[in-house]
Amino acid sequence: MSKHLQAPEPSQQPKHPASPADFTAACAGLAAVLAADVESRELAGLAPHAEVELFRDAGILPALIPAERGGIGLGWRELLTAIRPILRVDASVGHALAYHYVNSWRINLNRNADSIAALEQETAARQLFWGGAGNPRDAGLTLMPDGRNFLVSGRKFFATGAEVADRITASGTRADTGEKLAIVIDGRGSGVSHPGDWDNIGQRLSASGSVIFDNAIVAPECVLGSNEQTGDPQSPRGSLSILLFQAVLCHLHVAIAEGALESAAEYTRTKTRPWATSGVDLATEDPYIRTTHGELVSQVRAADALTWRATERLIAAMETGWELSDDARGEAAIEIAAAKVSSTRAVLEATSKAFELTGARATARSAQFDRFWRNARTITLHDPVAYKAQEVGIYELTGVYPTPSAYS
Amino acid sequence: MSKHLQAPEPSQQPKHPASPADFTAACAGLAAVLAADVESRELAGLAPHAEVELFRDAGILPALIPAERGGIGLGWRELLTAIRPILRVDASVGHALAYHYVNSWRINLNRNADSIAALEQETAARQLFWGGAGNPRDAGLTLMPDGRNFLVSGRKFFATGAEVADRITASGTRADTGEKLAIVIDGRGSGVSHPGDWDNIGQRLSASGSVIFDNAIVAPECVLGSNEQTGDPQSPRGSLSILLFQAVLCHLHVAIAEGALESAAEYTRTKTRPWATSGVDLATEDPYIRTTHGELVSQVRAADALTWRATERLIAAMETGWELSDDARGEAAIEIAAAKVSSTRAVLEATSKAFELTGARATARSAQFDRFWRNARTITLHDPVAYKAQEVGIYELTGVYPTPSAYS
Amino acid sequence: MSKHLQAPEPSQQPKHPASPADFTAACAGLAAVLAADVESRELAGLAPHAEVELFRDAGILPALIPAERGGIGLGWRELLTAIRPILRVDASVGHALAYHYVNSWRINLNRNADSIAALEQETAARQLFWGGAGNPRDAGLTLMPDGRNFLVSGRKFFATGAEVADRITASGTRADTGEKLAIVIDGRGSGVSHPGDWDNIGQRLSASGSVIFDNAIVAPECVLGSNEQTGDPQSPRGSLSILLFQAVLCHLHVAIAEGALESAAEYTRTKTRPWATSGVDLATEDPYIRTTHGELVSQVRAADALTWRATERLIAAMETGWELSDDARGEAAIEIAAAKVSSTRAVLEATSKAFELTGARATARSAQFDRFWRNARTITLHDPVAYKAQEVGIYELTGVYPTPSAYS
Amino acid sequence: MSKHLQAPEPSQQPKHPASPADFTAACAGLAAVLAADVESRELAGLAPHAEVELFRDAGILPALIPAERGGIGLGWRELLTAIRPILRVDASVGHALAYHYVNSWRINLNRNADSIAALEQETAARQLFWGGAGNPRDAGLTLMPDGRNFLVSGRKFFATGAEVADRITASGTRADTGEKLAIVIDGRGSGVSHPGDWDNIGQRLSASGSVIFDNAIVAPECVLGSNEQTGDPQSPRGSLSILLFQAVLCHLHVAIAEGALESAAEYTRTKTRPWATSGVDLATEDPYIRTTHGELVSQVRAADALTWRATERLIAAMETGWELSDDARGEAAIEIAAAKVSSTRAVLEATSKAFELTGARATARSAQFDRFWRNARTITLHDPVAYKAQEVGIYELTGVYPTPSAYS
Repeated sequence: MSKHLQAPEPSQQPKHPASPADFTAACAGLAAVLAADVESRELAGLAPHAEVELFRDAGILPALIPAERGGIGLGWRELLTAIRPILRVDASVGHALAYHYVNSWRINLNRNADSIAALEQETAARQLFWGGAGNPRDAGLTLMPDGRNFLVSGRKFFATGAEVADRITASGTRADTGEKLAIVIDGRGSGVSHPGDWDNIGQRLSASGSVIFDNAIVAPECVLGSNEQTGDPQSPRGSLSILLFQAVLCHLHVAIAEGALESAAEYTRTKTRPWATSGVDLATEDPYIRTTHGELVSQVRAADALTWRATERLIAAMETGWELSDDARGEAAIEIAAAKVSSTRAVLEATSKAFELTGARATARSAQFDRFWRNARTITLHDPVAYKAQEVGIYELTGVYPTPSAYS
Repeated sequence: MSKHLQAPEPSQQPKHPASPADFTAACAGLAAVLAADVESRELAGLAPHAEVELFRDAGILPALIPAERGGIGLGWRELLTAIRPILRVDASVGHALAYHYVNSWRINLNRNADSIAALEQETAARQLFWGGAGNPRDAGLTLMPDGRNFLVSGRKFFATGAEVADRITASGTRADTGEKLAIVIDGRGSGVSHPGDWDNIGQRLSASGSVIFDNAIVAPECVLGSNEQTGDPQSPRGSLSILLFQAVLCHLHVAIAEGALESAAEYTRTKTRPWATSGVDLATEDPYIRTTHGELVSQVRAADALTWRATERLIAAMETGWELSDDARGEAAIEIAAAKVSSTRAVLEATSKAFELTGARATARSAQFDRFWRNARTITLHDPVAYKAQEVGIYELTGVYPTPSAYS
Repeated sequence: MSKHLQAPEPSQQPKHPASPADFTAACAGLAAVLAADVESRELAGLAPHAEVELFRDAGILPALIPAERGGIGLGWRELLTAIRPILRVDASVGHALAYHYVNSWRINLNRNADSIAALEQETAARQLFWGGAGNPRDAGLTLMPDGRNFLVSGRKFFATGAEVADRITASGTRADTGEKLAIVIDGRGSGVSHPGDWDNIGQRLSASGSVIFDNAIVAPECVLGSNEQTGDPQSPRGSLSILLFQAVLCHLHVAIAEGALESAAEYTRTKTRPWATSGVDLATEDPYIRTTHGELVSQVRAADALTWRATERLIAAMETGWELSDDARGEAAIEIAAAKVSSTRAVLEATSKAFELTGARATARSAQFDRFWRNARTITLHDPVAYKAQEVGIYELTGVYPTPSAYS
Repeated sequence: MSKHLQAPEPSQQPKHPASPADFTAACAGLAAVLAADVESRELAGLAPHAEVELFRDAGILPALIPAERGGIGLGWRELLTAIRPILRVDASVGHALAYHYVNSWRINLNRNADSIAALEQETAARQLFWGGAGNPRDAGLTLMPDGRNFLVSGRKFFATGAEVADRITASGTRADTGEKLAIVIDGRGSGVSHPGDWDNIGQRLSASGSVIFDNAIVAPECVLGSNEQTGDPQSPRGSLSILLFQAVLCHLHVAIAEGALESAAEYTRTKTRPWATSGVDLATEDPYIRTTHGELVSQVRAADALTWRATERLIAAMETGWELSDDARGEAAIEIAAAKVSSTRAVLEATSKAFELTGARATARSAQFDRFWRNARTITLHDPVAYKAQEVGIYELTGVYPTPSAYS
């Protein structure tokens, strides 16, 4: 690997979980650790350097990298199942973690096989953490040729994970030729800075602030090819990364809802007093608490079931390889869009109405019970849900799949 | 089989579909036939004698009966997938058809193996149609011993399918001992009459009126054993029929919603004029039509995904056999209850809001477009959805599964 | 009045209610009469000739006409209050009745004072019933000069009340000059025919089918002036009729919802059995029935309160006269649009969910309990509610009032 | 007045607004002042001492006190209209302010006329601020006779305004006789302390923490009589304070919703970028933003209209005096309960969905745009909305009004 990429020394010898079961157990353990102080960490809202070290030490970062390259060799199904408990208790750091997996995996959607192999091997060996800098609503990055390297410059907002990342995926436009290239940037290298401008109401630990590149060096090994979305119109596969981000968002939505309802149930069981005129001895026997809880859980289960069905369809598309058809991609895109609509509605309703189960005292700030809604409200605005519904509607009305783009 | 059971001569030699693929094709064909005049049949609202003959002639009635007993040998997964197109276009007759499968299969939840085998063989050989007479809110049926037979008397409302059935499942209480027994009654036999009192706003072709038994003969071969729900408290398996009915209702809910939205899309594409101030040339380009359609489809897809996940859990429970645990039954029960809540909400919203896609002219009675809502509104009242939500809530709050009962 | 206008002989001497209190009592009596057989009349769905005779005999038709012209001299506030009971029990005929008042009053928005006076006097003297033929989505009517008269030709759909009307308001375009004129047509005259094509799922007694004019004679006294919407751009007053129609629709929405909930409460009190696992002795003690009923009533009361506030604003605008400002009209238009959105949501939810209070047996067709939803679903499609919400949104976002048009 | 009551010296000569118009203008000015730094004050969440001084200096505190006692002499209608702008921009301090008016007015519901007169005169003269300590879910306060005074002891949670109050309304039980008495406590006196335990997610400036009384002196002039709710069962008037609190909560709900939507509109106009695939140049032209905004505004307007109608009914009840009937009180109670249900739904939906109008960047913490939802979510939990819906349902189903109690 290029000397320009400098990875941190691992704080200790990584202990790679050796199997899916090990990995699942490691994630459960991490979820418990994160749960212990999520309220105070969330309130402080610092960039999650400590949390990333926790993940690194646990050896979970190269989960998707094949065993022959030093990774754990999980598939997406096993991965998303195993990390769900983390997303439930701390969807904020969980966002950065889930995006790490997307960003470190999406390089596979490019055709530069040697670079991909080297990047994966290094990621596994050094337990590297990945972020992204791809917000399509900002101006693009510029790539200035400089000998065999490029120098990349520009600013990207909403660069989830970048502030704490060892490697950052991005794309940039060559100043000389106008060609758009997919690149990987050393997050620890010179010319990369973070204004620390992420202080939002939710997803506070997701490191989603902006990143500034000022002539940061991009070695040729870190140029993965023409941009996956725009550069390879023959290939529906190239744009699967967008669908993967959307699917991961659905998992985050559902996980936040599940976390809120689990917390609410625990609170109701242990702290909520029955209402004076309810005629029951325990809050858990209140008819309205029971039914409202049941309705919310039912909607969340439905969103979860659809999220998984969409995920299965996406996995099938990802496994199809380069011969993936437009229609197969389109079917996955529609199912994911529907899951986005359904999970958005479910998580917003669950995280807001959950307070009607717990009662007024759960509004104490110390409970941080509002973090579920704040997380939900923030992450569901990633891109407007009305346009996801529109995509589904257009397909059902006319049979036309969404054009692959920055959000579809 | 007893001479007391008289099956009609098949109108023609049954042509059993020989494979799941054949069966699926046969159902698709039947859906097309039913679609052709569903509006006029639905308006007339006659008992579906003709429709049952259609099913009989197509040879689809013994779908679940093992091949070695003369049936097609499908599993529930294949069956429910294959009949979905029928449920979409005509959920009213589809209700009777789906219940036929439940009623002819549920005898397997009893322990009288010889009778079960004989009943299945006869059903396959003669393409028998099954109904049920089990409404738990009515007074129970009485069984009067009469030599080796029983004479059954009483009235049951909401006996879906019974009016057009060759065999009717029921349970009754022995007048002499008070024992409750599961029985099968010859629907064509003496002492069985149908007041023809089903004239409801929806599910008009489901033959869901009442049935009266006046000393109808029940031969000993048609006594299947102690009542499945109450008679065998050691056995969670015995009460799986209730969950199966509930799961089938979820499939009906989803199918009605799908049918409504497909019809609405077709209408919008071909007949709806764009609104004057919409600024678009086609109704399918109207932003509100697009997004509303997409939202409705998304909710229905979510309900469908959960319905299938619940169905898979139930199938696993059914396949477990007599050693099924309370917890495994309970998990299935909760998932099905959640699917009921989700699919109820989805189908009511879809069938009512669909008119906002098609516009005012779709209220012409000739379009019968309201039949989707009328069907949905009728079938979703089978048992109160609030109590299904309550079951989910109780489980989430306290970990307690629903007690097996007439609706849970 | 012109000999071309032929009114029916009143079946008996009209007994004009002499006061608002008399009028209110007369309407209450009519509501009771209509309630007695609304189910069977609604099922038959005939044009409401008999109902109009009932209104005529009761002397309620000239309610808004000043006493000095032979009318009762009510204002809109008193009228809408008094007829609400009629709209609750039979919103279908109530639709035609309410539109009668709009159509017979809207002539006041024209400047031809002598014709207006004569038409009002005749309406009072002969208890005339008014309909309209103004559906803006159809091609316009043509006016062919014929001596001092015009001959009007063309077809209008959704001409509520026209089939049973003595007088029909309309507008047409002069074939020679292209001028658009507001006219009144003798509904009993030659050249006016009704295809009887109103057979819709709801509002079946509203006589909302199409009307065909084939050289029907329009005497000069029945030309009221340039078309109110388009002809007098200096005058916001001219287009108040559109707002009045919209406000009346809101009253109909609320009334349907009230009727459905009153019927549901009566049914629940007298017929619904408590659910088996509810633990209560009466359905009215079921916690979910109580709360759901309360939620529906609350939403309907809110829609009603807004409907009345909007109506008050409109009445103020109507009373302002010709100096009405664009802004004052605009404020009324926005409040009415908001009431339309609110009342649409409320009535659809109330009429569909009301079944969850009454239970499954209320789906018996004999109860005709679905007529509330069918009426609601039909009338709320008068024009797309999404565009009413859009009008409110545009105003709130930009301060721009809706442009006076056929629906705004 | 007793020497035990020590009021602060007014920081400056109160400038009583001399008329309703002056008062309205003063409130508008205060709203502008509060709006300037509401975000930072809300974040800090300190007890609103400074804000109360602002109100005191503006002379608005004795708004409801008759002019002959030195007050401004407004009625509730004028007052609630005038303070609405304050509630919109800062519902958190607005909560304490609105409760000041309730607490300083509710003494009129007692029969001790001389004490009431004296307390009102002092309130006007010294611009006193009032809080309350009446949370019915806590243990009651104890009154120990001590010569001619009582010594009051106990703790009350959710004592909105008490921490910054000069006078605190409460009730306590005599240790010797068990009689329950309505009292007024000097908030600045000895024996009154505030743990400062209000650090909740919303309504952070409402001073809603607990208050501890440790032998605080209550002079005989500050004993107003038997407790208004329980002491005078003959008098529906005595319990009107509860309805007044509930009505004021409705106004707060609506005001929060209005504030959120106004802020969202401003943000959308000035900052939101149109979505990439929207095809429009301005966010305010986006069809989904327009319609969603319009739907939210419509629901809020409906809740507002019902809130006002309920308020009018309550004002009529308050003006009736001691002869108020149970039915008249009951009618007001039901309308207020319906307004609570409607306004709760409206404000929760508006404050959460408003983010879908503004887009992702509005989640920046600096915008504090989430404070609307946090305020809404906190205040709407005052008492469970399901039980308010239940009250409405019981009345509609059975005609029974709510029993006057701590929340009804």
